[in-house]
Amino acid sequence: MPPKRLDAAAPGFEKDFSDFLGRNRDSDENVDRVVADIIADVRARGDQAVVDYTRKFDWPGAELANLRISDAERRSAAAKVPAAQREALAFAAQRIEAFHRALLPQDVDFTDATGTRLGARYRPIDSVGVYVPGGTAAYPSSVLMNIVPAKVAGVARIVMVVPTPGGVLNPLVMLAAEIAGADEVWRIGGAQAVAALAYGTQSVAPVDKITGPGNAYVAAAKRRVFGQVGIDLIAGPSEILVVADGQNDPAWIAADLLSQAEHDASSQSILITDDAAFADRVAAAVETELSVMARADIARASWRDNGCIILVPDLPASAPIVDRIAAEHVELAMEAGPAEALAQRIRHAGAIFIGRHTPEAIGDYVAGTNHVLPTSRAARFSGGLSVADFLKRTSLVTCTPEALAELGPAALALAEAEGLGAHGRSVSIRLNRRG
Amino acid sequence: MPPKRLDAAAPGFEKDFSDFLGRNRDSDENVDRVVADIIADVRARGDQAVVDYTRKFDWPGAELANLRISDAERRSAAAKVPAAQREALAFAAQRIEAFHRALLPQDVDFTDATGTRLGARYRPIDSVGVYVPGGTAAYPSSVLMNIVPAKVAGVARIVMVVPTPGGVLNPLVMLAAEIAGADEVWRIGGAQAVAALAYGTQSVAPVDKITGPGNAYVAAAKRRVFGQVGIDLIAGPSEILVVADGQNDPAWIAADLLSQAEHDASSQSILITDDAAFADRVAAAVETELSVMARADIARASWRDNGCIILVPDLPASAPIVDRIAAEHVELAMEAGPAEALAQRIRHAGAIFIGRHTPEAIGDYVAGTNHVLPTSRAARFSGGLSVADFLKRTSLVTCTPEALAELGPAALALAEAEGLGAHGRSVSIRLNRRG
Repeated sequence: MPPKRLDAAAPGFEKDFSDFLGRNRDSDENVDRVVADIIADVRARGDQAVVDYTRKFDWPGAELANLRISDAERRSAAAKVPAAQREALAFAAQRIEAFHRALLPQDVDFTDATGTRLGARYRPIDSVGVYVPGGTAAYPSSVLMNIVPAKVAGVARIVMVVPTPGGVLNPLVMLAAEIAGADEVWRIGGAQAVAALAYGTQSVAPVDKITGPGNAYVAAAKRRVFGQVGIDLIAGPSEILVVADGQNDPAWIAADLLSQAEHDASSQSILITDDAAFADRVAAAVETELSVMARADIARASWRDNGCIILVPDLPASAPIVDRIAAEHVELAMEAGPAEALAQRIRHAGAIFIGRHTPEAIGDYVAGTNHVLPTSRAARFSGGLSVADFLKRTSLVTCTPEALAELGPAALALAEAEGLGAHGRSVSIRLNRRG
Repeated sequence: MPPKRLDAAAPGFEKDFSDFLGRNRDSDENVDRVVADIIADVRARGDQAVVDYTRKFDWPGAELANLRISDAERRSAAAKVPAAQREALAFAAQRIEAFHRALLPQDVDFTDATGTRLGARYRPIDSVGVYVPGGTAAYPSSVLMNIVPAKVAGVARIVMVVPTPGGVLNPLVMLAAEIAGADEVWRIGGAQAVAALAYGTQSVAPVDKITGPGNAYVAAAKRRVFGQVGIDLIAGPSEILVVADGQNDPAWIAADLLSQAEHDASSQSILITDDAAFADRVAAAVETELSVMARADIARASWRDNGCIILVPDLPASAPIVDRIAAEHVELAMEAGPAEALAQRIRHAGAIFIGRHTPEAIGDYVAGTNHVLPTSRAARFSGGLSVADFLKRTSLVTCTPEALAELGPAALALAEAEGLGAHGRSVSIRLNRRG
């Protein structure tokens, strides 16, 4: 079934487009209550609560003694990965490391005209918990995308948690943990894993920040522990927005749209084009691909329920529509010149893939950019996961007596204006001494 | 009454210190439920709900027509500010702008050996809501600390909300809004203001991110709307940690400790020193200051209930204790050399004030650094508010056909390993065409 179609030149477009944007694909109705109870239980009963929930949700064989995956277990599982996949993971890790090194912020340190020395200093967070989804979808690439930037930032202790349904370790996930450099790996998941990382248990030392995608329970748990620990963005269903002219091979664009649709039925794939006949050819190509692809049921439901084709009068003018969608992934399938020009005009996107030869999936694995990106229009206010998520900044101020003499009177005036006498006193007592 | 005293060399120190760190000064028992109801009501009834809550909590005279403060009202209120305070505010604004300009991140754009062009681009968030507390404590300095960095980042629409008990405008707050460049100012506050900013009403256009400190209701509301909009850190009660040698004037250090204690009874002031006699002199000086200062009741309760004096064998060795406290403000009251050396060793602090002539209050107003800083040990994972909070990053990837040929096979291998056929197909279909 073809998805929704909108025409930007049609009279009812604004209303239809607003309705489309307003549709909520997140599902978090009653999970918050359940999650609150799980967190409270883990805080109260520690290890035993974690074991109980793991038995209930993941595998009956869970015991305190086997929750932490030993280095030997990890190596033994990782050893099963074929050479080609091993090399691909190592290649991806190297590229992610190189790109994220380029994003390291620079410390600031200068002395201004008053003689006041001001600085900003970035230091790694001491310990980070990385949530890795398990079960049907196990993504070794996500292990790299979380842990490699943490390593580049210099985080000393990286604790990975991953649910292992039936107790079975995923060799690729274990290898990715090894390549990226996880310091501890625990076979726990869900809200109970988030609670254990945030508050600690008898066995799990608490961390300072938790990153990584997860289901609605994990997202709700991260939101709840925010403040006790830091968290990264709240990940929702994947999205791709392809802006394509009529000169593309419809099969290429269909594959791109389906590459996100296959993630989950709540994923979203949108095509923007200025060529109605091309849109028809892409829709037909999607049906062809769906008839042969492995995850057709998921992709079909996503395309039918959340997909959309938007016709625009001309592609250069599509930037405002692209910005309102503020998609996780934006692909610009056109010649290099127009693609680059349009990329310059787009303000809201997690990542932009430019030109006909840059399928979004390259960014999922080996481009070097991070694939943990803002979804559900969060690109309006947030970028993807990065090395900055694993650093924190400290401000530094040094006044000489002379600098304090220059700055002090204004500070004193404002402290008095705000009615904060002791603030003023801490300044004036030093000024008086000097004078 | 003197506060708690701990001796790092005493046998029971570790337990006492852990207990001290574990004490929760935040109060958010039942506010979450109340806040959830207010947010739902504002989403359902829009303007009318905002008017109703403003009448109930702030002033009975609230009407839809007077919720937005007109430019004329703002100017008229601001005109009442005396020249000295006006100049002090302008001086502070200039210094905050200069420091935050130095923190602007640099875009990244390079082409690597495979011919893949990679980039990271920072762009301002379109619209930001700034929460400014009103009522008894009105802080024009906080207006500057939120809005000036947003302006430096290039945010196009800055919406300030401030509750005005009795409908009365604070001249200094209005002047600060004018100097900093707020685009809209609304006299609304509490969870209803946060909900209006996040979801919009008939009159208030929604924003993309909300920053600024507030009470427990505001903090709970920000946590709840996170995801719908971005938020900055969750601000808790203020803290100061002064590390001082015995050569300081006890009155100076007492004033510094009280400068945070006077904020709120739940604020926290801690002294670390290696000189027990000096500690006694500071404790005595605190009592002397308390006997004359304006906000003595608040400061006395804070010092008595949350204050602490920690004796250490030597100051250079105090860095690990400082890091475990991870205070919002750390003051190093000693000669420049030892202060600078200790500052280098401290990893967790919102801001560090170095040397005998740098009282923390300088950072509250005119140093140029931001005074919105992580509290409640959040300095472990977060820095203060900054220009980066008002920008977001987009990743950019451009592959030539040749670059795709180099990267494609590894992406294909990983897509297959993860069972994501359409991901692989979007790569292989392009590789095949080429070959």
